Amino acid sequence: MRQKEGRPRYRRLPARSNERVYACCRKPGCAILGSMKKLVVKNAFYAQSGGVSAVINASACGLIETAKRHRKHIGKLFAGRDGIVGALTENLIDVGRESPATIRGLKHTPAGAFGSARFKLKGLEQNRAEYQRLIDVFRAHDIGYFFYNGGNDSMDTALKVSQIGQALGYPIICLGVPKTVDNDLPHTDCCPGFGSVAKYVAVSTLEAGLDVASMARTSTKVFVLEVMGRHAGWIAAAGGLAGAKASQPPHIILFPEIPFVPQEFLDRVKQCVVDYGYCVVVVSEGAAYADGRFVADAGTKDAFGHTQLGGVAPVIANMIREAHGYKYHWAVADYLQRAARHVASRVDVEQAYAVGKAAVELAVKGVNAAQAYGRIQALSGAACTSGRGRHAIVRTRVAAGRTSEWAGLAERTPNKCISWRVADGSH
Amino acid sequence: MRQKEGRPRYRRLPARSNERVYACCRKPGCAILGSMKKLVVKNAFYAQSGGVSAVINASACGLIETAKRHRKHIGKLFAGRDGIVGALTENLIDVGRESPATIRGLKHTPAGAFGSARFKLKGLEQNRAEYQRLIDVFRAHDIGYFFYNGGNDSMDTALKVSQIGQALGYPIICLGVPKTVDNDLPHTDCCPGFGSVAKYVAVSTLEAGLDVASMARTSTKVFVLEVMGRHAGWIAAAGGLAGAKASQPPHIILFPEIPFVPQEFLDRVKQCVVDYGYCVVVVSEGAAYADGRFVADAGTKDAFGHTQLGGVAPVIANMIREAHGYKYHWAVADYLQRAARHVASRVDVEQAYAVGKAAVELAVKGVNAAQAYGRIQALSGAACTSGRGRHAIVRTRVAAGRTSEWAGLAERTPNKCISWRVADGSH
Repeated sequence: MRQKEGRPRYRRLPARSNERVYACCRKPGCAILGSMKKLVVKNAFYAQSGGVSAVINASACGLIETAKRHRKHIGKLFAGRDGIVGALTENLIDVGRESPATIRGLKHTPAGAFGSARFKLKGLEQNRAEYQRLIDVFRAHDIGYFFYNGGNDSMDTALKVSQIGQALGYPIICLGVPKTVDNDLPHTDCCPGFGSVAKYVAVSTLEAGLDVASMARTSTKVFVLEVMGRHAGWIAAAGGLAGAKASQPPHIILFPEIPFVPQEFLDRVKQCVVDYGYCVVVVSEGAAYADGRFVADAGTKDAFGHTQLGGVAPVIANMIREAHGYKYHWAVADYLQRAARHVASRVDVEQAYAVGKAAVELAVKGVNAAQAYGRIQALSGAACTSGRGRHAIVRTRVAAGRTSEWAGLAERTPNKCISWRVADGSH
Repeated sequence: MRQKEGRPRYRRLPARSNERVYACCRKPGCAILGSMKKLVVKNAFYAQSGGVSAVINASACGLIETAKRHRKHIGKLFAGRDGIVGALTENLIDVGRESPATIRGLKHTPAGAFGSARFKLKGLEQNRAEYQRLIDVFRAHDIGYFFYNGGNDSMDTALKVSQIGQALGYPIICLGVPKTVDNDLPHTDCCPGFGSVAKYVAVSTLEAGLDVASMARTSTKVFVLEVMGRHAGWIAAAGGLAGAKASQPPHIILFPEIPFVPQEFLDRVKQCVVDYGYCVVVVSEGAAYADGRFVADAGTKDAFGHTQLGGVAPVIANMIREAHGYKYHWAVADYLQRAARHVASRVDVEQAYAVGKAAVELAVKGVNAAQAYGRIQALSGAACTSGRGRHAIVRTRVAAGRTSEWAGLAERTPNKCISWRVADGSH
């Protein structure tokens, strides 16, 4: 079998009779073209990977419902139990046995219905047996389509699986279906999962901000909310949607991308309390000092001298207490934010469904590339601003293009406005 | 002026012409009776006190709307800015100037619209000047009704204010309007504020539990959610609504009322991971050892040797890591839970409105007692079960009487059932 250098260019060949076949190159007689002819009707494998979200099952729903409408190409659809582990252990769920109502219900079900996994395939050369095992399972179940629903690491898995077609002679169409709450997946304007966690953080910041504002005179003056985003501050930035003016919470947002400078931060907290009577801080779990050390890694030790790993929120709350003596409260949303289906963004749910649907439509057109996941336009105007360089603390706004969902958020909190300001730059 | 021993008995006197007057005793010529005649049309004072909730403004709404329907008795209604502090500083808001739409909007607005306060009046003998100041302000604004919306400490304030009628000769009808998320207010079957935080905790436990369940094979095996309730475990108990079977999260609930025994707890965690593959824990912030020491007070010190005050969730999560090495996550809901208007219980909103309405109706009937706040029957079946004595870990169910709201919760999460089991005993 011939191997090509670099990324192959795929083109669609003219259909003959009722066959629709595709080739990886323009040269007739290509080995992949030959084998691809057999893919006209093949079974499919779908799995969820990495951290789950409030809407990943909506992608599963879109994918499964669309696959059912492409019987000419896709026979059975098997879901892998616990991501790629389900393929390696031949733990497959025939979703065709589920009722349409159950599949429809996935659109409204949080977490990963089929189980998700944090499991990284090694390179083909490092663990050829693992790939051979995949081929054996795929061959046993006549699988010609591979859909992998996840983030950056999962796209890496999809890419590796896609290589078995050329490297090991097992033709398979592979597509990565995008999912990540962090919104840090390349080639997407925004990513399914982010919209919902952004809404959760915006709503929570707004509600907690109102709480603190109403008590600040005689009680809590500082509130710190820790949100996800170890390396990307999109989720923290979403907290900025809660306030329309500088006087409204959150007054400070701390990003992983901008070095944390304690004294600047503490000065700003004090100024907020002086100016507004209180201060609300949203902080990314990945907030770090200039040397790259996480703020959360504060060197705390318990009574037995063991290093205690905690969140960043209690660490900076304690800094504030020691510097200013303000009464404070802090919250760590952790899984609550990414699991919060009850307050999921409608736009996000529709986008998640759409990428699942698009994956099947691309697959039956013969697109075989792990990086071919759908570009989403609904939030294409998304941008936020930040002070750069030596400014450790900035105000940030996420601007939404055509997001009817955010309007829905404003309806839920009639006394407050959501800022729509499209700011220059990006964080 | 005559003073009576103990609690005065109030009775309604027959109305003469269009006057409706009330007396504190049956004896003619009573000084209070004499002055009470002037109360036929008086202004009213309303204030919010203590930690706010998602529905305290619904009580304000019920109270204000009802007061407007009793013009024969209540003239203007003034809201105190920041609780009783608003009275002491003469910082009053004439709510009659607000539009009906604004008042109606209070029903859907979280936190304390007029500002709340943690401010405790001293006893009459300790600070007579403070009471005299109250009288001066009340007299200046012709206030004859005092409504105080809060929890146990606030009821104490209402009781003290009610004493000025007899002790200082300023007749005033005082009513406490119940509010507390902890559900620990005596004389109420449940308390406005609790239903919403209970729903938040149940929904969050359910969602996060599904998240962990879907990842447990290759990732997080233990999740700990810290909720409010320093001395009462009702909120933690509400987490139990998330699971219908022992295998479903939460697998463990830790109460303030039941001493925490680390080894029993750790054994139970391990057993859950063995049996179910993962373990979800809901813990009250007030979980404590048998000697009364809070578990959250773990004697942790930061890099500078300063005592670090943190939540209980990271403390027990670290215990689990050190004992078993399981990958864990933890969340601290803090203010998010009590501020969460977006997921407020409909029954709770209606109850909150109802107690505000009832307070006015009782007041115009002349009931003057801080402890006369309304008994709420909607959750009268509420009870939960617990293992007592040496059992540190129990499964608990809050049973709801006629709570259509909980049915609404089940609708939101169609793949899960809410347990309706009415269990014996109470925690």
